[in-house]
Amino acid sequence: MVVELISVGTEILLGNIVNTNAAYLAERLAGLGMSVYFQETVGDNPERLYEVLKQAKDRSDVVILSGGLGPTQDDLTKETAAKVCEKGMHEDQKAKEYLIRYFKKTQRTISEISENNWKQAVVPDDSIVLYNDNGTAPGIIIEADDGTKVILLPGPPHELIPMFEQQVAPYLCGIEQGVLYSKVVKIDSIGESAVEMAILDLINEQSNPTVAPYAKPGEVHLRVTAKAKDEEEGKQLVMPVVEELKNRFGRHVFTIEEHVTMEEALVDLMMKHHLTFATAESCTGGLLAGRLVNVPGVSNCFNEGFITYANEAKMKYLGVSADTLKQFGAVSEECAREMSEGLAKVTGAKVTIATTGLAGPGGGTEEKKPGLVYISCTVNGKTTVQKYQLNGNREKVRYTAVVRALTLMRHSIINVYE
Amino acid sequence: MVVELISVGTEILLGNIVNTNAAYLAERLAGLGMSVYFQETVGDNPERLYEVLKQAKDRSDVVILSGGLGPTQDDLTKETAAKVCEKGMHEDQKAKEYLIRYFKKTQRTISEISENNWKQAVVPDDSIVLYNDNGTAPGIIIEADDGTKVILLPGPPHELIPMFEQQVAPYLCGIEQGVLYSKVVKIDSIGESAVEMAILDLINEQSNPTVAPYAKPGEVHLRVTAKAKDEEEGKQLVMPVVEELKNRFGRHVFTIEEHVTMEEALVDLMMKHHLTFATAESCTGGLLAGRLVNVPGVSNCFNEGFITYANEAKMKYLGVSADTLKQFGAVSEECAREMSEGLAKVTGAKVTIATTGLAGPGGGTEEKKPGLVYISCTVNGKTTVQKYQLNGNREKVRYTAVVRALTLMRHSIINVYE
Repeated sequence: MVVELISVGTEILLGNIVNTNAAYLAERLAGLGMSVYFQETVGDNPERLYEVLKQAKDRSDVVILSGGLGPTQDDLTKETAAKVCEKGMHEDQKAKEYLIRYFKKTQRTISEISENNWKQAVVPDDSIVLYNDNGTAPGIIIEADDGTKVILLPGPPHELIPMFEQQVAPYLCGIEQGVLYSKVVKIDSIGESAVEMAILDLINEQSNPTVAPYAKPGEVHLRVTAKAKDEEEGKQLVMPVVEELKNRFGRHVFTIEEHVTMEEALVDLMMKHHLTFATAESCTGGLLAGRLVNVPGVSNCFNEGFITYANEAKMKYLGVSADTLKQFGAVSEECAREMSEGLAKVTGAKVTIATTGLAGPGGGTEEKKPGLVYISCTVNGKTTVQKYQLNGNREKVRYTAVVRALTLMRHSIINVYE
Repeated sequence: MVVELISVGTEILLGNIVNTNAAYLAERLAGLGMSVYFQETVGDNPERLYEVLKQAKDRSDVVILSGGLGPTQDDLTKETAAKVCEKGMHEDQKAKEYLIRYFKKTQRTISEISENNWKQAVVPDDSIVLYNDNGTAPGIIIEADDGTKVILLPGPPHELIPMFEQQVAPYLCGIEQGVLYSKVVKIDSIGESAVEMAILDLINEQSNPTVAPYAKPGEVHLRVTAKAKDEEEGKQLVMPVVEELKNRFGRHVFTIEEHVTMEEALVDLMMKHHLTFATAESCTGGLLAGRLVNVPGVSNCFNEGFITYANEAKMKYLGVSADTLKQFGAVSEECAREMSEGLAKVTGAKVTIATTGLAGPGGGTEEKKPGLVYISCTVNGKTTVQKYQLNGNREKVRYTAVVRALTLMRHSIINVYE
């Protein structure tokens, strides 16, 4: 099945935002075994959108459009799609119910639904309306008379992604004969090419299931996908390969669940062992705690953290000695160690993590260059300090340091508890 | 002049990487006053690339392709572009010199230039060869017989960006008569539709300069763009409108500089008044400090911050009273106030900011729903507490709370110091 992607929106066309939706949809569709040959971006202009959509509809089986479903005048995706599919429009009862449900969910009354919002309940004839859990624009699947499916999704990623996962992906799999069964094996702290080298035999020899790597900063995801007649057969094809990957990468595999993030896997591990953690951040400046706090229920294992940016703060709150700072500097193995060990004393947390480094761009010396980061983790009195020389600008160095810290925490806990 | 963008590469088509080149090029072209109506992405497939490029060349004045210029077999952009432009290929002396120059620059000898690399010096006839300061693939401008320009750029952003800035942008401006001058006015804490309502007259009445809004979470950017014969004339057209916008939105304008972020504007303001700040975060859990620490040089005004997630931490580090927590709860105006005032006492910072809220999804009550956030800012002993009911999931609530906190800090400082 050939799927084509059209991103609609002047803000993408003008480069005001980066088109992450196209990357997300393309990756997921590849994972579902569907082919994408063309992607287009077009502004909120009905004539040009018509031209692009017409061409896409003629050469592909499914066209997914994102954006341009908002309540304002310049949002014209729905009208244009109806025109290309030669469909009329009607006010849809289900779409109205969805709108009311969303307003109730977000603590607003029906009287607050504006005229523009009600307009969002007008949809093309012969279409399937998709509920939007995170916004007012419903998704729409138009089943055109020639068999093509034209799928309209809202532009904001936090609306588009859940709608795709929960409603569009199952719909697409339903069109295809059989099912696609896939699992993802998420691996930390090994580079993409090293991961690929370690599984070249699996990549080359297998055709069903396939194994495809995908790299994110600090992690590599291996997606194992099988075509099968039903879910049970899919599972039987996929799981032996997943087990093989777990054997090859051992503790570097932090999850095989689609939606579990690195921080969730870590918080789960701490919950399992009834551990509390605390953070002391210098160069990451709160980002590490900020990321861990993104896990709902983290309050079960997290009470407090410090951002000790200045040397004085490192001494005052964590008990780092003035001598250490004078002799080795704040960006040193010794300082990092005193930070996480001092933090354990101050807070009584079983797991403590500390970061100190040079995020750049300035402030480096011949000996200590920007990107130099020390991370120290203390678990039950046992401390491990790691030194990293990270690449990239200030933002990237800080982001990567957070990923490294999450990884060091997980591995240190496993060393002591598993 | 109408420019069309084509991104070539299977890794983009499959969503393995996000297409930042398209966003970068589109934004720069808009800034240069050129119109982009269509963008396409296509894989390393010569037939489909031919189809897309042919169409683009027929409807646009300039087509910029990025990617597919590498030395390997599957890089076919150059050959396909030559075919579409009906040009032969030849080994180019200048391209060879560039290759040698790059190898010398990267401390390698000419003998290390592989056969595949030499292949990169073969270019379409009648083309201009562009030097690549950061890689082996030269850029190429093909001037087709029908007047269309087809420009080929390497895919890696660190090669593409300098090449565009130093060689392609001047080339394009040379084709166009005159210049485009633009400024951006960045506004905090007013919604996009309210901003639009306040400047409807400017949007509707003006054609040169134009005023175009663009919304980000918690901020709205208004871009004022004029076509002019030179930069001086552009400035004279744009600046009166910028002044008018500054008058209308007053202190909500946090910068008129293209690359200044909200956190940078805030840190600049604090530096100007020699203020130090400290943070105490509950629901934002470090994200607020994490964002402020992204500003290089923030160490001049930032020493320390606390993440006081548990009630005990709020009492222990900030001196919030047990009575307050018992009577009003941690998510309350009273608690927020005691947090920022206690923080000022503990740290001595002139500006202190505290966040406490329910990020969700669970943990709400009938009275206090997820999304309820209190933010308190104390400047020189004067405290302002704001209450917000924010929409969205846990991540969005926390992100928006950070933007609101940055805004409250800036406004509170202006109230006392300006």
